Amino acid sequence: MSEQGGIAWKADSEDARQVSFSQSVDPRTTRPFGPRIWDTTPEDLSCILDLSGASRVVWAVLSPLARAAALSTVADALDASSNLLVELADRETALGTTRLSVELARSTYQLRMFASALRNGQLNPVELDRAAEGQPPAGHPEIRRIYVPLGVAAVFGASNFPFAFGACGGDVASGLAAGCCVVVKAHPSHPQTSQATADTIVRALASAGMPAGVYSLVFGVDAGRRLIQDDRVDVASFTGSPQGGLALWRLANERDRPIPFFGELGSVNPVVATPSGITHIQEFVSDYLDSLTLGAGQLCTNPGLLLVPRGLGVLEQVASQLQQRDVGPLLNENVLRRLEQHVAELLTIPNSEVVAAGREALGWHFPPTVITAPIEEAVQHLAILATECFGPVGLVVEYGELTEVREVISGMPGCLVGSLFASEEDDVSALVTLLAKVAGRVAWRQWPTGVAVTPSQHHGGPYPASTDSRQTSVGLHSVERFRRPLVLQGFPDVAALSVG
Amino acid sequence: MSEQGGIAWKADSEDARQVSFSQSVDPRTTRPFGPRIWDTTPEDLSCILDLSGASRVVWAVLSPLARAAALSTVADALDASSNLLVELADRETALGTTRLSVELARSTYQLRMFASALRNGQLNPVELDRAAEGQPPAGHPEIRRIYVPLGVAAVFGASNFPFAFGACGGDVASGLAAGCCVVVKAHPSHPQTSQATADTIVRALASAGMPAGVYSLVFGVDAGRRLIQDDRVDVASFTGSPQGGLALWRLANERDRPIPFFGELGSVNPVVATPSGITHIQEFVSDYLDSLTLGAGQLCTNPGLLLVPRGLGVLEQVASQLQQRDVGPLLNENVLRRLEQHVAELLTIPNSEVVAAGREALGWHFPPTVITAPIEEAVQHLAILATECFGPVGLVVEYGELTEVREVISGMPGCLVGSLFASEEDDVSALVTLLAKVAGRVAWRQWPTGVAVTPSQHHGGPYPASTDSRQTSVGLHSVERFRRPLVLQGFPDVAALSVG
Repeated sequence: MSEQGGIAWKADSEDARQVSFSQSVDPRTTRPFGPRIWDTTPEDLSCILDLSGASRVVWAVLSPLARAAALSTVADALDASSNLLVELADRETALGTTRLSVELARSTYQLRMFASALRNGQLNPVELDRAAEGQPPAGHPEIRRIYVPLGVAAVFGASNFPFAFGACGGDVASGLAAGCCVVVKAHPSHPQTSQATADTIVRALASAGMPAGVYSLVFGVDAGRRLIQDDRVDVASFTGSPQGGLALWRLANERDRPIPFFGELGSVNPVVATPSGITHIQEFVSDYLDSLTLGAGQLCTNPGLLLVPRGLGVLEQVASQLQQRDVGPLLNENVLRRLEQHVAELLTIPNSEVVAAGREALGWHFPPTVITAPIEEAVQHLAILATECFGPVGLVVEYGELTEVREVISGMPGCLVGSLFASEEDDVSALVTLLAKVAGRVAWRQWPTGVAVTPSQHHGGPYPASTDSRQTSVGLHSVERFRRPLVLQGFPDVAALSVG
Repeated sequence: MSEQGGIAWKADSEDARQVSFSQSVDPRTTRPFGPRIWDTTPEDLSCILDLSGASRVVWAVLSPLARAAALSTVADALDASSNLLVELADRETALGTTRLSVELARSTYQLRMFASALRNGQLNPVELDRAAEGQPPAGHPEIRRIYVPLGVAAVFGASNFPFAFGACGGDVASGLAAGCCVVVKAHPSHPQTSQATADTIVRALASAGMPAGVYSLVFGVDAGRRLIQDDRVDVASFTGSPQGGLALWRLANERDRPIPFFGELGSVNPVVATPSGITHIQEFVSDYLDSLTLGAGQLCTNPGLLLVPRGLGVLEQVASQLQQRDVGPLLNENVLRRLEQHVAELLTIPNSEVVAAGREALGWHFPPTVITAPIEEAVQHLAILATECFGPVGLVVEYGELTEVREVISGMPGCLVGSLFASEEDDVSALVTLLAKVAGRVAWRQWPTGVAVTPSQHHGGPYPASTDSRQTSVGLHSVERFRRPLVLQGFPDVAALSVG
């Protein structure tokens, strides 16, 4: 949650005062560029929340078709601004225009998925228990279960996905689809991208005839804190570091009226390969390094821990392939400093060593690095293994027996994904059960990165991967975080009601 | 959370030490009776949780049919012990054998509802997004969403429903149905009933071939605190006072690994009548007093606040009918003392007055009482109105205009139920919207008490009615508190896996 920026004098029409600001910095050169983006002042935040409050009723009672149309308009507008947004985002994040184009396309795909589910009724289930004659418990009045939005949602954007978990991300799409007004707290790593994305969304919603407070963007740590504490906010979601997430969660719980808080806090995702699960070792290692270094390793689904059978030569392959690899710079200086710390911690495991590192580059750069440790030491130092290395750094541990694998995995904290590379001849039931106990998703012969945007997807996992393992931030079920059930009991004419 | 009991020397085979205990007390005579029920010691609790942990895998991976059979066996056993259990419960709670028989029948009905939903697949939905060719986001692997139990559930029983929200209550039924092992913390108001109920359940599960740790019962405040803090516990639910619930919630959040906590903390349920909504005033008031005094008013769905049009003579009717009413004693001395406090607080509202009180009786008794206050004072003192009066005490406020009703309701905190008595000719949309904003259920021309046990029921509401307004403790959806989604990605043969 640290900011790239500072404090400076800001002149308004009437006076001047000192205000904090975010400042774009190019990770490739570590040089600032572009305008200062001023933090949202308490007064401005209050106006924004008044607007959200005024708009929530309109947005909440909107017909699903009208809400779907508004989401589609937003998706179209984002697609139309794609070149500008991707270029800005690339300068601020150095994630590359290819990846960022895909990410933006994924975001608009997601908005359209929700729009489509609003149109076909999937997002508006009505359950009806018809009245039954007789004494309770068998006899009962008509019970009609519908869903109503929670109100105003605060969404804290992530550093590593300026679009898909940012100002136009999954929480924005699902919050809006659920009928909540959304206030996004921009991540300071990409203030201009966030602002341009928000401007596009606000214009699109206005062109669709929606009131001004349906979607808003705020900047600054202080505004974020005030946002989650404000009684006009009803629910909050967050993607980011455990420290930032836990601090916000505490604030959400300590309110006079506590609100639901959904945080995705980081994950060390284990990948287990059985001896017969690795058929082509070169390809296996190449795919591993692709997954490990995707987005400079700054992915919550990064394969942080790879467990492979001893004697297959995986480490040798890693050594030979990794030296040819390079990755782009990290998002910001904080990410770099934390990663340096984590690597130093990993290397405190006795007899751990660097297998290989990739090439050096410019900017906030950390060479892609693979570390190994003896499995008996890994078991003794599970707490170190269990800390997410946010960046292109992986730990590969060789095992002799599957019982050792069991010992490691069952000592790990919750995670988003576990992957299993085995052959169809293996009896994998025990390993799947093991991975299922710690993970929210278990993948068969697939690397953990690349979360499919499908209706039934679950992107969440046991703590600390998620603050609530029952919730997802991807897929149609993600709307469940932003709405609650309402039962209408015995109403003669529900069609005449507009409840939201 | 105060206990009826004390501390005494307890002799074991090897030594003697001072241990706290619960003691049954007859609310009709305020005299203790029956044996001391010793609090669960830390050592015993630890053994219980080891057993739960050992049993959780067996119970979790049990086929839905086998789990259904076990739940049915439990229901049958409870029905077979009905006479004994109801008699014990009546002596400990004074709620009356008629009401308690209905309550136990409701509990076994609920167990069978879950068993039936396990059999017909309703509780085991599988969502499948078939693999799609192509590049992401359109292309994706097969995504199969299933549900796995959270593990070991701690269930904190309520004072006012020894069965339906107690040792064989909805949280036990839904926790077991979800595949969790359940540890119930007995409420000290009915220790013998809890013990006898638990014995029945444990014997039934054993006769169904289930391991010993699937269901357990513990006693004592200290055991409750240890339970929710223990790392072997994965989820907790609670029905009771805001003080007790908030204290436990804090403990759940402050763990190294925080766990989901679902509390139902109390509710002031508003009932609004329009001028044309009251056709037979005598009957209306009689039904109101029935609802208000059911279970000596000790119901979370009690109609705490009744808003009626001025000039219909509702208060006069209340005065004339209430004097003929009597109710049984309260559950324990704490309930009585808190109620006395609450009534005193209500009477600090300027120009408030007692409309009438019912007859005096023996034991921990508080006469059924209706208080009124001018609506303009009610609006000024919403904080006092918003505190639940747990007992046979209601506030009736007369209004002149519906705008006054809006002012009161929109200032109320969250609640479980709102009721609306209007005629079909009234335009009730605005009133329903108003009630829906604060309540989890809105009833049409029905009193809030008497929660129907049906699949789609929602028993929960905005804070403080529930700590999480999205969750229910009645109906099939109540299992959602005790399990989490798991995605199996790209598995060739899911039938061979047993995940739980």
